[in-house]
Amino acid sequence: MEPISSIQNARIKAWRKLFKKRERDRSGLFLVEGVHLVEEALKAPVNVKVIVLVEGKDIPEQWKVKNTEIVYVTERVLQELSETETPQGMIAVCEQPELKNIVFDQGKYVLLDNIQDPGNLGSILRTAEAAGIQGVIFGEGCADPYNGKVVRATQGALFHISVQRMDLSEAVDLCKENNIPVFGTSLSGSTYSAIAPQDSFALILGNEGAGVHHDLLHKADQNLYIPIYGQSESLNVSVAAGILIYHLRGD
Amino acid sequence: MEPISSIQNARIKAWRKLFKKRERDRSGLFLVEGVHLVEEALKAPVNVKVIVLVEGKDIPEQWKVKNTEIVYVTERVLQELSETETPQGMIAVCEQPELKNIVFDQGKYVLLDNIQDPGNLGSILRTAEAAGIQGVIFGEGCADPYNGKVVRATQGALFHISVQRMDLSEAVDLCKENNIPVFGTSLSGSTYSAIAPQDSFALILGNEGAGVHHDLLHKADQNLYIPIYGQSESLNVSVAAGILIYHLRGD
Repeated sequence: MEPISSIQNARIKAWRKLFKKRERDRSGLFLVEGVHLVEEALKAPVNVKVIVLVEGKDIPEQWKVKNTEIVYVTERVLQELSETETPQGMIAVCEQPELKNIVFDQGKYVLLDNIQDPGNLGSILRTAEAAGIQGVIFGEGCADPYNGKVVRATQGALFHISVQRMDLSEAVDLCKENNIPVFGTSLSGSTYSAIAPQDSFALILGNEGAGVHHDLLHKADQNLYIPIYGQSESLNVSVAAGILIYHLRGD
Repeated sequence: MEPISSIQNARIKAWRKLFKKRERDRSGLFLVEGVHLVEEALKAPVNVKVIVLVEGKDIPEQWKVKNTEIVYVTERVLQELSETETPQGMIAVCEQPELKNIVFDQGKYVLLDNIQDPGNLGSILRTAEAAGIQGVIFGEGCADPYNGKVVRATQGALFHISVQRMDLSEAVDLCKENNIPVFGTSLSGSTYSAIAPQDSFALILGNEGAGVHHDLLHKADQNLYIPIYGQSESLNVSVAAGILIYHLRGD
């Protein structure tokens, strides 16, 4: 079959619209770019509807793609569907997994308050999944978890962790009702390492510039602080997330 | 004085060349973008040669710019000198601080092996400075510390930490001669949290895909591992750096 060679092709135009959050929300679809990420999506409980391949490229034999449509396109068309310089000749159109209603049982949770940088968000999701966190709550102001940069920065972890959009004040209330200790992060909190690891916790991480909203800090059981020994004012939020999540979960 | 309005202006063309490593190496200059970073450079032992301002903008009164030339340009020219979408109307041309010969005395050091992503590198420098690390060694394959993305990701920490380019095998030898314990990072190492905090250490961090080179792992006194409880294969290197640096330094 001839590869699609026109960027005016109706399907190509429809998929390109998935760069925009509004269209992702409307359609329930999102794009996954690159061989490694598409493979991760296929292995996960994610419905991979279409794999778009550059002409001449093949699907690796061991991949299970029985229910996935394969569409060939020219190099130029593939580039149109890509947000990176090296899309590796492969892009998938996937269904957004239904956002689960995360149950706040005894477990470990991360609450994200207005975290706007997609790279930071993706990195936090990757760390949370690696640390065995049960669920990540996206509060108001956060970037979309299905934003291409977020997806790429998770390195596939997005497909393996429960994510929910929710009002954070409500999420904190649910944690408290279920006896889950809630930790905020603040420059005027307790040194984190003075807190023992916890079987169950909720950790609130805040905006890159403004930190966690003061109403949430006020509601938290305790606010944690990572000491700074140099002249920097703070750490990158995804680095702070790693230090705190791994400290609180213990071994 | 009239602002420079032509992107063909010789000085503008010369400064634009500083986007390239070759020209930064040749001239010993680099660009710093945005109000916060320029302020940090002025406060640090960095020679800020020129501040380029968009017409109509002023230098904040409290800044010490006695030895700094101020050049006004049009919006379009400023945009030409910028690598970001929001350069905030201010870009500085700075001299690269002379790379110090880091002395491997008792102290805390971070060794970077082939870390290529400028965002990761900048974030690691920010964390290292915040944690009070004495020096960061850039081994072969690392991005240039004066790359614009690195500078921005450090949030100014680059101006406050000693950085040196050096063969890492040689750096490890120097550490050993000075009784500084050397820790590699590897998926088959010891769980990091089993190691007590250290008054003095050198931590080797490796390439985003390939990790630390096996020759260096072999030379290290011990290799550390961050346990993964989910399905991710690894953590982002700047997140791993944060967890390990803060664990090893202790409180």
